[in-house]
Amino acid sequence: MKQFFAKKLYDLVPYIPGEQPSSKEKVIKLNTNENPYPPSATIQKVIREILEKGYLRKYPQPTSLSLREAIAKHHNISPDMILVTNGSDEGLALLFRAVLEKNSKVVIPYPTYSLYPVLVDSLMNGSKLQKIPLREDLHFDFVKLKKAKGNLLAFASPNAPTGILEEKEKLLDLVSTFSGIVLCDEAYVDFSPPNSSLIPEVKNFPNLVVSRTFSKSYSLAGLRVGYLVSNPENISLILKLKDSYNLGMLEQAIAKTALLDQKYFSQTTKKIIASREFLSKELLKLGFKVVPSSTNFLFVQPPSISPEDLFLKLKERKIYIRYFKDEISKNYVRISVGNEKENKTLIQTIQKILR
Amino acid sequence: MKQFFAKKLYDLVPYIPGEQPSSKEKVIKLNTNENPYPPSATIQKVIREILEKGYLRKYPQPTSLSLREAIAKHHNISPDMILVTNGSDEGLALLFRAVLEKNSKVVIPYPTYSLYPVLVDSLMNGSKLQKIPLREDLHFDFVKLKKAKGNLLAFASPNAPTGILEEKEKLLDLVSTFSGIVLCDEAYVDFSPPNSSLIPEVKNFPNLVVSRTFSKSYSLAGLRVGYLVSNPENISLILKLKDSYNLGMLEQAIAKTALLDQKYFSQTTKKIIASREFLSKELLKLGFKVVPSSTNFLFVQPPSISPEDLFLKLKERKIYIRYFKDEISKNYVRISVGNEKENKTLIQTIQKILR
Repeated sequence: MKQFFAKKLYDLVPYIPGEQPSSKEKVIKLNTNENPYPPSATIQKVIREILEKGYLRKYPQPTSLSLREAIAKHHNISPDMILVTNGSDEGLALLFRAVLEKNSKVVIPYPTYSLYPVLVDSLMNGSKLQKIPLREDLHFDFVKLKKAKGNLLAFASPNAPTGILEEKEKLLDLVSTFSGIVLCDEAYVDFSPPNSSLIPEVKNFPNLVVSRTFSKSYSLAGLRVGYLVSNPENISLILKLKDSYNLGMLEQAIAKTALLDQKYFSQTTKKIIASREFLSKELLKLGFKVVPSSTNFLFVQPPSISPEDLFLKLKERKIYIRYFKDEISKNYVRISVGNEKENKTLIQTIQKILR
Repeated sequence: MKQFFAKKLYDLVPYIPGEQPSSKEKVIKLNTNENPYPPSATIQKVIREILEKGYLRKYPQPTSLSLREAIAKHHNISPDMILVTNGSDEGLALLFRAVLEKNSKVVIPYPTYSLYPVLVDSLMNGSKLQKIPLREDLHFDFVKLKKAKGNLLAFASPNAPTGILEEKEKLLDLVSTFSGIVLCDEAYVDFSPPNSSLIPEVKNFPNLVVSRTFSKSYSLAGLRVGYLVSNPENISLILKLKDSYNLGMLEQAIAKTALLDQKYFSQTTKKIIASREFLSKELLKLGFKVVPSSTNFLFVQPPSISPEDLFLKLKERKIYIRYFKDEISKNYVRISVGNEKENKTLIQTIQKILR
């Protein structure tokens, strides 16, 4: 058959998201770092208003202005430093398209969020990826990262799938050294100690772009809202590539309402951090190696069973966790922190498997 | 300041969507072809269920499976012939990225939907656009279109901003002649006579891709849902470039529910077509030239006042219509069909302006 599409598209390998069991199946789902608690109940009122007034027939505000204003206030920055996106994935894709022209180079620590290499390939413009492996202790290899040159350096902070948060000073030192744009992907930073975010530093580093999401800490993975933060010049450039109406009216209103309910946010975030510490202790007791996590998941190495076997045996018992086959990750499994009951069931089930 | 982004991005001119007056301002908004009626009331129940069960905390189904199944049934095709997108704009952008590699060529009749040229430029890969001007009667110049060669031919059917629906045989003859992919953008086809769509022809033409949207006929511009239809091979290739979770859970559920309420869809669509005919007659009476429309808008030439003046004078009186400054469009204004009251106010206001 005639090939109508771009030549490189035929061999392109797309990103594979974590498995979504059918909604009919009863499973404990600890494989995609979803929040175990529902989103703020305050969102119900704003949805009702949009429906009652029939607003959905109209186009949404193209740049999510009202939501951007709320986010700006939350971070104490200006709204023109924010680009709201259809999940943080859209923000990452826009950034890669904005920075990487023909034969550009992207540097990443490895492993980190597994979407970045896919985004480079998806451009199909000859852009190359340089992976700087993590050190044996799973920390970034700052010595090698600082020597790397490229148009874009991308990493998650705290990192995924390790859960490790690097020291702020080291990250900023890397940002100031790197010759191109630096993407600091803070999908999980709300589960880290206070003041871990690089957002306040955006004004000091012209090449720094931070990404955030409502999927994890705001319990809105089903909604698809994220945002990029950078200086206004950078944001206005990336904005040129955005679809006109990238965010629906419900997304804009729901994300804003959830953001404003900081009391609920703080309660659930604290509960998840406490659960993470509980899970961590229990797994240590069972002989696991547990990487110190600043996220809502744990990267752990089981005793007396291979990580892949643990993954498969838990799946048989209707508990989904994540297993990556990469060079370093293959020695670990990644477990999302569930609610209290799910965490207890997980521990009991692992005890049975190890017995 | 150092230029961190792709060189071509600095001069890129983005798409400019129709003006969105602030929600506080009371205007009659006939500038973006929104539906004057609210979406089906059945969507309220499905939203309530998603909220009550706290589903938004979880990632949505990545390929909108349940919605795709409903769309497939509606068109009597298979679900693997459908790619659901975040508004039809995302579908168009994905298609352009999938087809156009370095220095590709895109052919369009001109004018047509003004997003296509922007999508070509946004690729920043040297892809070029060839515009084949409409004939003087505003119909496609099929003789010239059939001679044009390229990787992608894109047009709206019925066309925008003219509202003209070309004969199906002529369109299919063009599809069979063209050497690359043909995009037939059917954003407005639900307002055309029955059997105007090319979707049933997708199985017969390996290079045909049809796009659809829920924004117009389903009154869901604020939601952002559209889809592409093509053969399964083409769809699976375009799918490789899609963000993992491009559509939220609410969008998937609401679009499906609206689609299933065909009774309401048919009532509102009929009312809009009747209003279009009413508006058309009234404008003819006032001496306008009215292009025969198969859409929910009219492309008209006012008597004794320039199109731009009419646009500005209506805007002063809080009625928004659309004026494009292109070579051909500059001689017309585009007016969306409003509800009965809005249409009457429009006619009365134009009468006063012309007096």
